[in-house]
Amino acid sequence: MAAPARKEAGPLEDISRLSLNQMTTDQWDLREAVEGCVRAGIPYIGLWRHKVAQIGLKESARIVKEAGLKVSSLCRGGMFPAATEGELKERIDDNRRAIDEAAELGTDTLVLVCGPAAGKDLEKARLQVARGIEAVAPYAEERGIKLGIEPLHPMFAADRSVIVTLGQAVRMAEAIGAPNVGVIVDVYHVWWDPDLYEAIERARGRIFGYHVNDWVIPLPHPVLHGRGMMGDGVIELRKIRQAVEDAGYRGPIEVEIFNERLWHMPGDDVLTLMKQRYLETV
Amino acid sequence: MAAPARKEAGPLEDISRLSLNQMTTDQWDLREAVEGCVRAGIPYIGLWRHKVAQIGLKESARIVKEAGLKVSSLCRGGMFPAATEGELKERIDDNRRAIDEAAELGTDTLVLVCGPAAGKDLEKARLQVARGIEAVAPYAEERGIKLGIEPLHPMFAADRSVIVTLGQAVRMAEAIGAPNVGVIVDVYHVWWDPDLYEAIERARGRIFGYHVNDWVIPLPHPVLHGRGMMGDGVIELRKIRQAVEDAGYRGPIEVEIFNERLWHMPGDDVLTLMKQRYLETV
Repeated sequence: MAAPARKEAGPLEDISRLSLNQMTTDQWDLREAVEGCVRAGIPYIGLWRHKVAQIGLKESARIVKEAGLKVSSLCRGGMFPAATEGELKERIDDNRRAIDEAAELGTDTLVLVCGPAAGKDLEKARLQVARGIEAVAPYAEERGIKLGIEPLHPMFAADRSVIVTLGQAVRMAEAIGAPNVGVIVDVYHVWWDPDLYEAIERARGRIFGYHVNDWVIPLPHPVLHGRGMMGDGVIELRKIRQAVEDAGYRGPIEVEIFNERLWHMPGDDVLTLMKQRYLETV
Repeated sequence: MAAPARKEAGPLEDISRLSLNQMTTDQWDLREAVEGCVRAGIPYIGLWRHKVAQIGLKESARIVKEAGLKVSSLCRGGMFPAATEGELKERIDDNRRAIDEAAELGTDTLVLVCGPAAGKDLEKARLQVARGIEAVAPYAEERGIKLGIEPLHPMFAADRSVIVTLGQAVRMAEAIGAPNVGVIVDVYHVWWDPDLYEAIERARGRIFGYHVNDWVIPLPHPVLHGRGMMGDGVIELRKIRQAVEDAGYRGPIEVEIFNERLWHMPGDDVLTLMKQRYLETV
């Protein structure tokens, strides 16, 4: 067999594409996170709905706008699979609200975490996800919002997302066929996949976000809060970024790290470390 | 989209295909596990090398043979990726020893857990796995041993196996092209995969083992010891068995459960529960 030949990207030259996903500094509320980004010179922020709700939607939008920050995305819509038709309708309604919130906050991207199956039936759950996205895509289009299907790591298949590979997410986006339905590539969720580079290439024109962090071993407990800072784990960050850029993505790069240790550090120190690792390893 | 139409197998009628993978009763040594199987009327046992080494190879072979048990497989060979050529050669030598042990124990199947990357380079590690298997396949053929590549769940990609999907394992087996190189399907490792049924069909003629257990949530800590008893989790066991049988596999069904709670039960109780769940849910 031939030797591996895939390229690695060179270092990023500056932090002009850097975005703080606000779950990386869960110790901060939205106002504190915005102020932290301003102090650190970070141009983008990725927001979460529960953090927005704490401050209020209009006030959150005002804070971000007055600070001059750009909002790379809002997390999260999705969670479609439901035990009943009535429940599926409720999930769809909630996604419409998420679309409204995204528009109000001035971002063009809503991240979809698609949800677990209501029972054991994965095929049924995956069809419900597709139906849910199809149901809200036209409304998102009206409001100028792109929907990014984020495949989660297969270890979350039973409790968070039946969408577990980038290839699956891309095929679903293709089948739905709306120009505003695409994918989010988060290295934590996809790094292990032998079909990753093929799926990234196939996602050309549909990549709506790129998230970085790292996979550390041994796997911490709970796994949900054990992502690592870039450079602390095994992910081939520059190889994946090169592929994502080769597929045409040049948008913001969100640092999204659920990590108890980072949540116990002063937020400004997290941002300092994050900027350093971003330039050294991403 | 069309409604899901995939069939589920009916219940198994008896335990004539049941195998105890001896890690399910880690509280027992090999002799105790063999005696337990005899008491429970379980016809097959799946052995582990470290358990065999405790008793000694010849003595283990004698105990199993005199008890009239069939050995469904020996775990494990593999662990090929290496930092140096010298180390890769050592791994290959160890696999030859594993093949000898399998032959001595009277099984025709060696399970390969292929190993993590020596560094971060997944492509390189995967090429080393293929090279390693190619290097030992002819010797295994001479000794009458089939090599089953077992893809592990992607959450083990950094520390146990760079082979993480059934499709990847099947493609590797096809590329190697030896009649005695195939795959092991363990539901715990593959249940989440949107391409699972396609991969099972593609594996026709190359399925050398089928392992059952269950995926429980929330995910226990450590994840390695948190597999569930069949029926305690979310895996669509009968749907997967139907697919495996449709692809021509009619061999033993190994129950392989790494679970601290089961390891603290009397072994005979584990076997009783296992037989019951096998008939009820597998």
